Amino acid sequence: MVKSKVLRVLGIDPGTAITGWGIMDFESRQRKVIAYGVVRTEANSPMPMRLSKLHKELNEIIGEFCPVVAAIEDLFFFKNAKTVITVGQARGVAILSCVNSGLEVYEYTPLQVKQTVTGYGRAEKKQMQEMVRMLLNLKEIPKPDDAADAIAVAYTHSVFQETINNS
Amino acid sequence: MVKSKVLRVLGIDPGTAITGWGIMDFESRQRKVIAYGVVRTEANSPMPMRLSKLHKELNEIIGEFCPVVAAIEDLFFFKNAKTVITVGQARGVAILSCVNSGLEVYEYTPLQVKQTVTGYGRAEKKQMQEMVRMLLNLKEIPKPDDAADAIAVAYTHSVFQETINNS
Repeated sequence: MVKSKVLRVLGIDPGTAITGWGIMDFESRQRKVIAYGVVRTEANSPMPMRLSKLHKELNEIIGEFCPVVAAIEDLFFFKNAKTVITVGQARGVAILSCVNSGLEVYEYTPLQVKQTVTGYGRAEKKQMQEMVRMLLNLKEIPKPDDAADAIAVAYTHSVFQETINNS
Repeated sequence: MVKSKVLRVLGIDPGTAITGWGIMDFESRQRKVIAYGVVRTEANSPMPMRLSKLHKELNEIIGEFCPVVAAIEDLFFFKNAKTVITVGQARGVAILSCVNSGLEVYEYTPLQVKQTVTGYGRAEKKQMQEMVRMLLNLKEIPKPDDAADAIAVAYTHSVFQETINNS
């Protein structure tokens, strides 16, 4: 049986200063980028306010575009332990926005995303972004980088889902 | 001018599996523990559900006891980077619960808590807990450990606040 239902995916690349997001529709093998952008929070604003702003804006994006699943970039090892903590906090808030809005949440590592998008686990950032543009028939590379990364995660989810549907 | 207003503090020691919480009233130099406990989430439950449960239960605790400020234990370096990420996520969700309920959020490092409670930055866990019991005139050490740690953070906030008020 061939499933043919549009799956609307919200891709998220979480961070405290800037969180990328992208909305992609996926039906059979067709994919279409609907919208993308970033949530920015001010560096000199207290952390609780920054997390609250991220939560509020993600809720608004979910409310506007009504995705049914979220694909979120997993963290890997950072040079700086402080960065892991703050990105972890932003990630927790992003996951909460999704799950409290009834979205199923999937997590993908940077390696999974790179391999899915470029076929190569050690691809450069620029290669990744150019592949995202090509695979999704976009006129230009989504800007800023964090939005392109978020779309790459949404794309990765659609490929994993396709593999499951076809197996 | 001597301020004499009861300040109700919610202390939080965040974690994914277990988050300690404690409610302490503070007025001039008087302190009273009102309630404490832990929020537990199941290890085999998906992370989004665990974060959602933590958020929901913290909201309920805030709704029941109406604290006006939150004091939350800051993270320090863990042996395991994976632990930093998951504790960071729980911490983000805990901060969000507090700020979205209108609480002012203060953060204290484990070193600040130890020095405030025991006067010694390298105190053992057991010493810390016994000091919490003595300082707050409790019949016994609050259990589990995470609840005692949360009360220690709330106590630390009250001492910092007292110093500010008297300076």
